Amino acid sequence: METKLVKTLREAIELAGLESGMSVSFHHHLRNGDYTLNMVMDQIAEMGIRNLTLNASSLFDTHLPLEKHIRNHVVSKINTNYMSAGLGRLISEGLMEEPVDFRTHGGRPRDIALGITPIDVAFIAAPASDCAGNCSGKFGPSACGSLGYAFPDAMYAKKVIVITDHLVEYPLSGWSIPEIYVDYVVEVDAIGNPAGIVSGTTKITRDPVGLIMAETAVKVIAHSGLLKDGFSFQTGAGGASLAAARFLMDVMLRDNIKGSFASGGITGYLVDMLNAGCFRSLMDVQCFDLKAVESIRTNPNHHEISAMHYASPAAASAVVDKLDVVILGATEVDTQFNVNVHTDSSGYIMGGSGGHSDTAAGAKLAMIIAPLFRARLPIVTDRVSCISTPGKDIDVLVTQRGVAVNPKNQELLLRLKDAGLPVTEMETLKHTAEKITGTPKKAVANGRAVANVIWRDGTQIDTIRSIG
Amino acid sequence: METKLVKTLREAIELAGLESGMSVSFHHHLRNGDYTLNMVMDQIAEMGIRNLTLNASSLFDTHLPLEKHIRNHVVSKINTNYMSAGLGRLISEGLMEEPVDFRTHGGRPRDIALGITPIDVAFIAAPASDCAGNCSGKFGPSACGSLGYAFPDAMYAKKVIVITDHLVEYPLSGWSIPEIYVDYVVEVDAIGNPAGIVSGTTKITRDPVGLIMAETAVKVIAHSGLLKDGFSFQTGAGGASLAAARFLMDVMLRDNIKGSFASGGITGYLVDMLNAGCFRSLMDVQCFDLKAVESIRTNPNHHEISAMHYASPAAASAVVDKLDVVILGATEVDTQFNVNVHTDSSGYIMGGSGGHSDTAAGAKLAMIIAPLFRARLPIVTDRVSCISTPGKDIDVLVTQRGVAVNPKNQELLLRLKDAGLPVTEMETLKHTAEKITGTPKKAVANGRAVANVIWRDGTQIDTIRSIG
Repeated sequence: METKLVKTLREAIELAGLESGMSVSFHHHLRNGDYTLNMVMDQIAEMGIRNLTLNASSLFDTHLPLEKHIRNHVVSKINTNYMSAGLGRLISEGLMEEPVDFRTHGGRPRDIALGITPIDVAFIAAPASDCAGNCSGKFGPSACGSLGYAFPDAMYAKKVIVITDHLVEYPLSGWSIPEIYVDYVVEVDAIGNPAGIVSGTTKITRDPVGLIMAETAVKVIAHSGLLKDGFSFQTGAGGASLAAARFLMDVMLRDNIKGSFASGGITGYLVDMLNAGCFRSLMDVQCFDLKAVESIRTNPNHHEISAMHYASPAAASAVVDKLDVVILGATEVDTQFNVNVHTDSSGYIMGGSGGHSDTAAGAKLAMIIAPLFRARLPIVTDRVSCISTPGKDIDVLVTQRGVAVNPKNQELLLRLKDAGLPVTEMETLKHTAEKITGTPKKAVANGRAVANVIWRDGTQIDTIRSIG
Repeated sequence: METKLVKTLREAIELAGLESGMSVSFHHHLRNGDYTLNMVMDQIAEMGIRNLTLNASSLFDTHLPLEKHIRNHVVSKINTNYMSAGLGRLISEGLMEEPVDFRTHGGRPRDIALGITPIDVAFIAAPASDCAGNCSGKFGPSACGSLGYAFPDAMYAKKVIVITDHLVEYPLSGWSIPEIYVDYVVEVDAIGNPAGIVSGTTKITRDPVGLIMAETAVKVIAHSGLLKDGFSFQTGAGGASLAAARFLMDVMLRDNIKGSFASGGITGYLVDMLNAGCFRSLMDVQCFDLKAVESIRTNPNHHEISAMHYASPAAASAVVDKLDVVILGATEVDTQFNVNVHTDSSGYIMGGSGGHSDTAAGAKLAMIIAPLFRARLPIVTDRVSCISTPGKDIDVLVTQRGVAVNPKNQELLLRLKDAGLPVTEMETLKHTAEKITGTPKKAVANGRAVANVIWRDGTQIDTIRSIG
């Protein structure tokens, strides 16, 4: 058995046989602290390779150097599930000839597994690895916890290169991705900046509007009929969502409710709920803070799950299919309950589905928390600029001025009315907002197509157009 | 999401679409305590399905009811890595029209992954499962520990049916095989008889010949140049092999040697070595006793590995590639160091490669321990009746009357001579044995082909012929 350890990234890329026109992939667990994508793309550019498809589970503004690689035709196509605002603005301004394909965290592994988006060379940023490529995110100076999104890349790419800054003796105890998928291992000085990888603590909101929404959200859950033993839950890492998790914990402890699991991106608040007995398990596809990283390393009930296990519609089943309640955000919601998380109020790309559509489709109760307006622009609108998640999958919108229930869920509507919650109509929320902010002159992005929004089943559900 | 839970095995088989001429698979972690294979095959027979290919990682005498399914043409072909003596005798007597294909524990997952032996419906006997098929061998009344050999079946079969006698709330904490691969889950009263699944304790030999061999084996290891920090080791569960493990532990503790891992089928003796600090990790594809089951459930350094991770030549790398020393058994060894573990001295099938060829190919030092004769029949012979593992992969034979080193390994020969070990020649061992036992009249199995021996790379290396 020859060693997989190669001295340089360049050598690994050469050995993997990367050529112009091929596809490379990256995962995003190092988030805005990631060094590897830029490191690899710079090396590839230097080698004269061009016209690559870049398949990244998410892209952050630390990846802004991609701009030059796009301009120089090193990268000609992007597939991703999320893109932060800096890169998003460039794409919206027409940086790329080919539209970006946005997928979901479940749709990406689906399309990789089905061969719709084949990967030639996958680059796995691994906080710990042995010489054979048994690797994990749980250990090392760049520990990020779960490597969930990297599993489809490792399993289906033609060649797999592990990049690590913490090479340990064989075998790494507690690997996530086994050596069976890994072709080459490269040691580098640092794969990321810990400050950008995980925040020390994620914080609940102190904003009174956020707190009101969080309280209302928990009341909706409490009266939904779902909050009982076996309850399962997911929430994002936004301030109001975290506040909702904390208030929910109080209710579950008070009423002695023993939930089954919480899933998705995991924060310290969910770790607290696990440790307090609110849930038996955490199903973790990505750690959001240091407390989550410490927990997944040490608590056998805090489980790493692959992106397939999390959300893939091509899997025999996935965790999202078992969700009772998910709390999600929105930049816009329309009167049909369609949700936009891709573009901002000016029409610029500044996000993406991530697991939004997947959890909304799977959960029994998909809840949007959003303030009525942000920066004097209303959130509720006649038609979202971009449909990220179709209204059919959303059950309820919680704002600081009331709760709108999707008419498809009459049972929920009755339950919330019976409970005396401030139930209202979408139209009413829209008018309330517009009374305060005035009717906005909505930005219209009507240029050429710069991005396609591909739902989790492979259907294109919207197109994002260029601005300016 | 519809439930995967179905009420009866029959319903699961129908839903999976099993038809005559297809292939079904089973894993053998419940060993001679397994109820599931007979249960499934009886059901299939009752449904009138015929001409199946049966792909089982191993078959035991508890599976003797297969005889009637073969006679009734329910099963027309068998692929397996091991077959115990009762079934073996029937095969050697010509029970089946088509030869059995014997593979290795690494060759089987290779050929499943490559589509050479496709599986239509895999049956996973799971000591614990939730309703979605997240399952494990670590929990429940029929706990068997690792489910390593079942992974390729789960991952590559067209349909996967989990059979469990311990259905737990979703999600099972500590699953081995994730729900993403599982189509149906069936609950039954019992999947196996715990007494046959794992022995309470595996015992080292008290036979003086075995003890002499074990002592010599450890001296060979100690003087091989391999016994140093980072040392990796595998041994079987035979009495002399276990004694060797225990003596090796004494040496490692005395000399403060910190090994890296022990692998393969795991016994309590290897668990003791892990706990004593002789190894950092156990890489466990199958638990042989209750102590191993308890350890894999509770010790995070005791790892379950899939059959691919253990030994597949189709994997990017496997654990066997990293082995320093493996201790293996033999029913015969010839002067070219070829080893037979398939047939007994009368030519009847009574075993199979299991991981024999895989570990021999991977290990730096592949050692055979065997007494010079058994039941007055010499073990060393001019030509083994069946080549299970080719002599090129064997480094040394240890007997109670001396040690023969394969001439290909001159370094080892010199080291052992320098150390004053009783080094001798194969021819000498053969003559010594024959002086005691007389020259045997060797049984000749010269009928039609009843089994093919397929090496781990897919090459057929021998044919076993019928007797009588």
